[in-house]
Amino acid sequence: RERRPPQVLFFPAPVTCVRPLLLSSPGHCNCSRSHRESALSCLTRLLLSARRSLDVCVFTISSVELSSSVLAVHGRGVRVRVITDSDYMALAGSQVGAFRRAGIEVRHDQDANYMHHKFAVIDGLILITGSLNWSAQGIFGNKENVIIIKSTDVVKEFIEEFERLWNEYDPS
Amino acid sequence: RERRPPQVLFFPAPVTCVRPLLLSSPGHCNCSRSHRESALSCLTRLLLSARRSLDVCVFTISSVELSSSVLAVHGRGVRVRVITDSDYMALAGSQVGAFRRAGIEVRHDQDANYMHHKFAVIDGLILITGSLNWSAQGIFGNKENVIIIKSTDVVKEFIEEFERLWNEYDPS
Ligand SMILES: [Zn+2]
Ligand SMILES: [Zn+2]
Repeated sequence: RERRPPQVLFFPAPVTCVRPLLLSSPGHCNCSRSHRESALSCLTRLLLSARRSLDVCVFTISSVELSSSVLAVHGRGVRVRVITDSDYMALAGSQVGAFRRAGIEVRHDQDANYMHHKFAVIDGLILITGSLNWSAQGIFGNKENVIIIKSTDVVKEFIEEFERLWNEYDPS
Repeated sequence: RERRPPQVLFFPAPVTCVRPLLLSSPGHCNCSRSHRESALSCLTRLLLSARRSLDVCVFTISSVELSSSVLAVHGRGVRVRVITDSDYMALAGSQVGAFRRAGIEVRHDQDANYMHHKFAVIDGLILITGSLNWSAQGIFGNKENVIIIKSTDVVKEFIEEFERLWNEYDPS
C-alpha cells in the first residue's frame, strides 16, 4: 500500500507556456510568455507521463494545453479513454471534437444532469482530481484545487467509478 | 503524521431524509423518504461533528440539508466561516443569505472569475473536498465525487488556502 501523502496544486496558475513539454524532440520556445514551472506545467508533465493508459473523466475540456497533452499521449499509442458531459461538449471551445477526430474513444452522459467529475487516472496508478475543469478560465482565472493521489485504495475506487460510467454511457 | 487513506464518496446519492440527524434531541421523522445511511448522511454527520471550527469554501451553497447542518453547528457556538462565489451567491436558492441573517461570517470574491473550490475543513483536522457543489442537483442528480482527507500535510495546505482567500476577500 502506497502511503505517500497526496500532493496539492492550487490555481489560478501564472500564465506560462508549456509548449516545450509537448515537443517530441527537446526544443526551445521563443514565445514571450514565461516558461518556468507552474501548477499547469505540473499537470501537463503528469498527463504526458502516461505509458500504458490515460482515463479522463472531466466535465469541461477546452484547455489547449491539457488537450494537447492528451492528444500527444494518444499519438504515442497509449490507450486514452475520455468521459465528459454532453451539454458542455457541444459548446464552442470544447476539445472533445478534436479528440474524436484523432480517434480517441469518447463517451458522455445521456441525461439532463451533469457528468461533473474532474478526474483522470494515469497508468491505473496516479489519480488527478479536484475542482478544476480543464479550461483556460479554470487554470488561469478561478480559485481551484487539484489533488494528486497515489494511494492504491483511493485510485482503485476512482478506476471503478470510471468503469461504471464507461459502461453506463456505452452508446451501443 | 496521519497515514489513513482518504475516504471517497460518489454521487448522486439516493434521495434520503437526513432530518433525524439535525434534531437536537434524538428524534424520529415520519416523512415518506428513506432514512437509511447514504453519501449525503455521511457528509451531514461530518459537518455536524464540528466542535471547534467549521471553515466552508464552496462555490454553490443551496442544499437545504448541508446548509441546515452549517446553521446547526453555528447555533451550538462553533466558529463558522464561509467563503463563496459572488456570482452564484446572488441567485435564487442560495443559502448564503440565511447564513448572514444567522450571524455567520461570509466572504466572497470580488471579480469575474469564479471562487470555484468545493471544500470544507472541520476542526482544522478533517478536509472534505471534490467536485461536489452543495446543491440538490449535485447531491441527487450529477456524477460527483467527494474525498475526505485527514492527512495533516494536505489539510494544512487547504487551511492555508482558506486563510489566504479569507484575507484576500476581506471587505474592510
Ligand atoms: Zn513558449
Ligand atoms: Zn424524514
